[in-house]
Amino acid sequence: MNVTLDFVLNELVIANRVLATEGVVDAYGHVSARHPGKPERFFMARMLAPELVERGDLMEFGFDGQAISDSRAPSVERFIHGAIYEARPEVQGVVHAHAEDVLPFGITDAQLRPVIHSGSFIGRNVPVWDIAENFGDTDLLVRDMSQGRDLARCLGNNNVVLMRGHGFAAVARSLIEVVRISVYLPRNARVQLAAMQIGKYKPLSDGEIAARAAGYKPYSVQTWRVWEYWAHRAGCGHMLGERPTTDAPGTM
Amino acid sequence: MNVTLDFVLNELVIANRVLATEGVVDAYGHVSARHPGKPERFFMARMLAPELVERGDLMEFGFDGQAISDSRAPSVERFIHGAIYEARPEVQGVVHAHAEDVLPFGITDAQLRPVIHSGSFIGRNVPVWDIAENFGDTDLLVRDMSQGRDLARCLGNNNVVLMRGHGFAAVARSLIEVVRISVYLPRNARVQLAAMQIGKYKPLSDGEIAARAAGYKPYSVQTWRVWEYWAHRAGCGHMLGERPTTDAPGTM
Amino acid sequence: MNVTLDFVLNELVIANRVLATEGVVDAYGHVSARHPGKPERFFMARMLAPELVERGDLMEFGFDGQAISDSRAPSVERFIHGAIYEARPEVQGVVHAHAEDVLPFGITDAQLRPVIHSGSFIGRNVPVWDIAENFGDTDLLVRDMSQGRDLARCLGNNNVVLMRGHGFAAVARSLIEVVRISVYLPRNARVQLAAMQIGKYKPLSDGEIAARAAGYKPYSVQTWRVWEYWAHRAGCGHMLGERPTTDAPGTM
Amino acid sequence: MNVTLDFVLNELVIANRVLATEGVVDAYGHVSARHPGKPERFFMARMLAPELVERGDLMEFGFDGQAISDSRAPSVERFIHGAIYEARPEVQGVVHAHAEDVLPFGITDAQLRPVIHSGSFIGRNVPVWDIAENFGDTDLLVRDMSQGRDLARCLGNNNVVLMRGHGFAAVARSLIEVVRISVYLPRNARVQLAAMQIGKYKPLSDGEIAARAAGYKPYSVQTWRVWEYWAHRAGCGHMLGERPTTDAPGTM
Repeated sequence: MNVTLDFVLNELVIANRVLATEGVVDAYGHVSARHPGKPERFFMARMLAPELVERGDLMEFGFDGQAISDSRAPSVERFIHGAIYEARPEVQGVVHAHAEDVLPFGITDAQLRPVIHSGSFIGRNVPVWDIAENFGDTDLLVRDMSQGRDLARCLGNNNVVLMRGHGFAAVARSLIEVVRISVYLPRNARVQLAAMQIGKYKPLSDGEIAARAAGYKPYSVQTWRVWEYWAHRAGCGHMLGERPTTDAPGTM
Repeated sequence: MNVTLDFVLNELVIANRVLATEGVVDAYGHVSARHPGKPERFFMARMLAPELVERGDLMEFGFDGQAISDSRAPSVERFIHGAIYEARPEVQGVVHAHAEDVLPFGITDAQLRPVIHSGSFIGRNVPVWDIAENFGDTDLLVRDMSQGRDLARCLGNNNVVLMRGHGFAAVARSLIEVVRISVYLPRNARVQLAAMQIGKYKPLSDGEIAARAAGYKPYSVQTWRVWEYWAHRAGCGHMLGERPTTDAPGTM
Repeated sequence: MNVTLDFVLNELVIANRVLATEGVVDAYGHVSARHPGKPERFFMARMLAPELVERGDLMEFGFDGQAISDSRAPSVERFIHGAIYEARPEVQGVVHAHAEDVLPFGITDAQLRPVIHSGSFIGRNVPVWDIAENFGDTDLLVRDMSQGRDLARCLGNNNVVLMRGHGFAAVARSLIEVVRISVYLPRNARVQLAAMQIGKYKPLSDGEIAARAAGYKPYSVQTWRVWEYWAHRAGCGHMLGERPTTDAPGTM
Repeated sequence: MNVTLDFVLNELVIANRVLATEGVVDAYGHVSARHPGKPERFFMARMLAPELVERGDLMEFGFDGQAISDSRAPSVERFIHGAIYEARPEVQGVVHAHAEDVLPFGITDAQLRPVIHSGSFIGRNVPVWDIAENFGDTDLLVRDMSQGRDLARCLGNNNVVLMRGHGFAAVARSLIEVVRISVYLPRNARVQLAAMQIGKYKPLSDGEIAARAAGYKPYSVQTWRVWEYWAHRAGCGHMLGERPTTDAPGTM
C-alpha cells in the first residue's frame, strides 16, 4: 500500500492529539505533514490547541507559509515548517513545541546529548538556534520566511534544533517518527539533567546512534506498537487505520 | 463588543476553574476581576476552593475589602486584591496563589527572571515582599489594608510580586492575561531552577520582554487559543462565550 | 454540636481517601482517630489500601494495638498509633505514611524545616527516629509496643517525626489537622529541597510558626474549605457532613 | 491451593496493566512468568503495549525465545527473559522496562543502593550491564541468546540489573514480587537522587535488607494489599482471584 493523502491527514489528527496527551505541546506548538502527492505543500492545523484538532481543522500551505484557498487564521509560526520542508526534501513531518524539560538546554551551555536508547533519534548533534543572533530583540516567534530559513540553516542535517528561550523543532522521514522523537526528547533531557547532578554521564556512542537509525522503519510492528499505544491514550484508538505494509519513506 | 459585566463574571468562573486544573491554586488562592462599570469595585469568590466556584459564589467588594451587601464569609486575603486595584488603575485582574514551584525563589536570594518566551509576561523585575519587614512575626496572611498596601507598594509597576514563604500576586490588564501569567510563572521557575543546576543561564533580554509585551492583545485569536484550551481542560468549554472583537483594555 | 462517634468514623473514611488521592499514602500507610468517647481507644482501617477503605473496614483498638472484638487482619504498624495516643492525651488523629518527597530528609543530615506558610504546622523541630539505634537490624517496621513507644519518645511534643529509610508519623488535635499536616509536609520538603539547590534558604521564624499555630481552628470556615475541596477530589464530597460549629479540640 | 496455570496467566495480564498504570512501562517494556507446570517454558505478551494486553495476547516461549506453536510477532527482547529463566531456576517472574528515574544510575558511576524500606527488595548490589563491553556498537536491544546470557551473567544472583542507556531487568520468586520490585525501584532511585543533592545519604544496612527479604511471603495479606490496590488502580480489580493460601514459592 502506498501512503495516501487520506492516511496522512488521519495520522496528522492523531499526531496532534498524541503530542497533547504526552505533554509535548499545550495550547501552543504544532505538527505538520508534507503532502504525499505534492511535495511542495504541507498540512497543519489552523490556529487551535493541538488537543482540539479535528480533520476539518487542517489547512494546506505552500513552503512560503501561505494558505492554499483557505482564509482561516493559521498558526503564526508556520514558517518554521515551510522553511524546513523547503530545505530538507526527505523530511515528511515537522514538530515545533515548547516542551518544558527541553528548555534548560536552550538557555545554558550544557549540550543536549542522546543518553538513552529511546532518545537516540535526536541524533548525535543537537544545535541551539538563538533568534537574537541574526534578528536582535524580537518576541522570539518565527514570524517570516527569513527567520524560518535561518532556523532551517541552523538545523542543518540534524533531526532536532533547540530554540533559545522558546522550544525546539524536530524533523523526520515520517509523522510517527517525528512524534516519537518529540516524545522521547524531553525524557532524554530529564535523564541527562538528573545524571549531571550525580556524576559524569556517558552518552550513547556515535556507533550506537547510527546502529539505531539504521534499523528504524516507520511502519514496522515495533514502531506501530508505540503509535497504537499513544493513540489509545489520546482517546483516538478508533481512528487508527491498518498498519501500512510498506516501509519505504519515499512512498509517504 | 464592549466587555460587559456578564462577560466578566462568566470569565471569572472559568478563571477559577482553570487555575485549579492547571495546578496554580489548590484549596487556597484566588482570582479577582475589576468591575467593568464601577472601577472602584471588584469581584471575587466567597471562601471556597477555586475548583468548586460557580457564578453564585462570586461576591462584590470595595477597595477596602468590605463586601457589598453580602454577608457570606469572604476569603481572608481579599486585601491583596483591594490594595492592588486601588494602586493600579489599569489593572483588571489579580491572582494570588501558592504555586509550589515559585516558592523557592521567595525564600532564597536567587532572583526569578523570565527565561522562556511564555514567561516573558512576568516582566523583567520580580520583587520579593517579606511581610516580616514591616509587620514582624505574623501568620504570613495579608489580613488588612495596611498589609495589602505594603504589598502593593512592593509590587510597584511590575506584573508579579513574590511573597516570602507564602506565594505570589500577579496582575494584568485582563483576566485572561493574569491567568496566563499565573500558569506560566511556575513553568518559568521550573526551567530556571533546572538551568541553574546545569550551568549559567541566559534570561530573556529587556528588548525581548518589551517586544513581547508590545504585541500582546487580550482577545487576539492567539490569546483566545490558550483560553479555549484551558477552559476545555477545566471542563467548562461550554461556558466560553464568543471571542470579543475588541482588544482595547480600556473597554474591560 | 459536639463531635460524635458517627462524625469521627465518617471523617476517618474521608481521611483515608483524601490521603490516597493527594499522594501521601499508596497501598501502605494509615490514618487513625481517637475514640471521641473512650479516650483509651482508637479507630483505624483493617489491612487494606486507604483508597479502598469503607466504613465497615474500620476496626477499634486499645493503646496496646489489640483489636476490640475483631478478628480481621489489622495493619502491622498499629503500634505507632497506640503508643502515640498513650503518650499524647491531646492528640486526636495520627497519620503514618511513606510519602516519597519526605524520605530524603530521613536519610541525610539535612534538617527539614518549615519554609512555607502551609508547612508551618509541622512545627519548628522535626526529629528523625532511626529504629536501628535501639533495635539494631530490623525490617524497619514498627512491630510492637516497645518500638512504638521508642518512636513516641523521639516524637516528644512535636507534630511530626521522620522515620529513617521508611517515612513519617504526624499527629494533631483533629483529623482534619493531621491530614493537612500530612499533605503539606511533602510540599514543604519539595520546596526546601529545591531552595537548597539554588541558595541559602530562609525558614519561617519561630514567631511565625507560633502565630500560625495560635490561630488554627479545626472547624473554621477556612479549614473546612480545604477539607471540602479534598473530599471532592477524592470522590467523597457527598459524604461530607455539616461543618461542626464548635472549635474546641476537647470536644472531639 | 497450588498455583495453577490459569491463575498465573490471569496474574500476568494484571501485571502488564499494573506496570503501565504505575508508570514502569510505556509502549515498551514487558513482564513474563515461568510456566507453573513446565519450568523450561515462560509466558509473555506478543508485540503489544502492556496496557493493552489481554489474556489472548499471551504467548508461550522456550528458554531460547522461540514461540511454541504461535506465529504472531513476539517482542524483540524476549531473550532477556529466556536467558534469565535458564540461569535462575528459582525465578518465577521477570520484568524488563525503561523506567525513566532508574536511567541516570545506568549512565553514571553513582551506584544505586536501597535507601528506603520499600526499595529493600532490589537487594544490596545492583550491577550495571553495558552491552558495549562484549558486543560493541549495537542498537542496545538484547536481540539474541548470547546477549541475553551475557546480561544474565551480569545479573548473577542479584534481583535487579541496570542496563546502560536502556533500562533494567528485575527478577523474583513470584509475579507479585517482581512487579513490586519494579514499582519501588524508580521510587528508591528518586529518593536517592534527591538525597544526593542535599547531603551524604545513609542506605539500608545489609542486615536490614536481609531482615526484610527473610520476612517476605508472596501471598501474605500484607503483600496482597498492594496487589489488590494496584489492580484496582489499573482498572482490573474485577480480575483478581482469591488470595492463594500457600506461600511456598515452589508451588508456583
